[in-house]
Amino acid sequence: MWEIFHAVVARGDTYTFDPEISREEALAYWLYPSNWSYVAEFEQKVVGTYILRVNQPALGSHVANAAFMVSPDARGLGVGRAMGEHSLIEARRRGFRAMQFNFVVSTNEPAIHLWQELGFQVVGTLPGAFRHLEKGFVDVYVMFRSLTEA
Amino acid sequence: MWEIFHAVVARGDTYTFDPEISREEALAYWLYPSNWSYVAEFEQKVVGTYILRVNQPALGSHVANAAFMVSPDARGLGVGRAMGEHSLIEARRRGFRAMQFNFVVSTNEPAIHLWQELGFQVVGTLPGAFRHLEKGFVDVYVMFRSLTEA
Repeated sequence: MWEIFHAVVARGDTYTFDPEISREEALAYWLYPSNWSYVAEFEQKVVGTYILRVNQPALGSHVANAAFMVSPDARGLGVGRAMGEHSLIEARRRGFRAMQFNFVVSTNEPAIHLWQELGFQVVGTLPGAFRHLEKGFVDVYVMFRSLTEA
Repeated sequence: MWEIFHAVVARGDTYTFDPEISREEALAYWLYPSNWSYVAEFEQKVVGTYILRVNQPALGSHVANAAFMVSPDARGLGVGRAMGEHSLIEARRRGFRAMQFNFVVSTNEPAIHLWQELGFQVVGTLPGAFRHLEKGFVDVYVMFRSLTEA
């Protein structure tokens, strides 16, 4: 899990974590006790991981949040889509009414496209909220989908 | 500070905290070591409090977040406005490029009006993301303002 996390955040193009975050800090975040954590396997190798959690406490706890990471070696296999679909089933099963992504970097087009295919909409735009290691300050989208509609 | 916090969250109309949150939990949240915490005084009484913090880690750490609470006894005195203006000065002084409010309840019209007067814009709408104790599920706004423009 750490290998995937490290490979993803070191690129500095999708997550706000320090690209040089330590293994200990990364796992403490990803495996935080109140998160539900999952891995995706392909040919007996872990190729992806995602977390599902409550986006806000009590009076906002009907909205789930999730974060996804795919091993760079496993791109194009549909791992992200499989985890995304799984997370929606899990979130519904746990009684959430909606799912929200708080921070989707606007230059991460494959992710945005995938989330739109899975029923998410861009409901907000945060101007220049991400400092992309290559591109500088770029916009960030807030994405949202209801789980109470078909 | 706890008295104000308790009086504000017990109403269940603006913050997601459990309206019955304990003093210990509330202060642990509000006085979290990496937050900057402030109080507003009027006639030698604490009438308001706010926190200023980083909204995201490393690659998002140029955007500040803040949260404000005014004593119900001190409404209409301009305490919220004074704290809001102070927070913008503080955020600029600490080098932030922007400030973002992640969760402004849409029925909290005085707050929305005040933030708009202080230069914030609604940049996102989260459908039904707050369970208002009286009104049920209501929309939530994400509000944002640049600190690098006049």
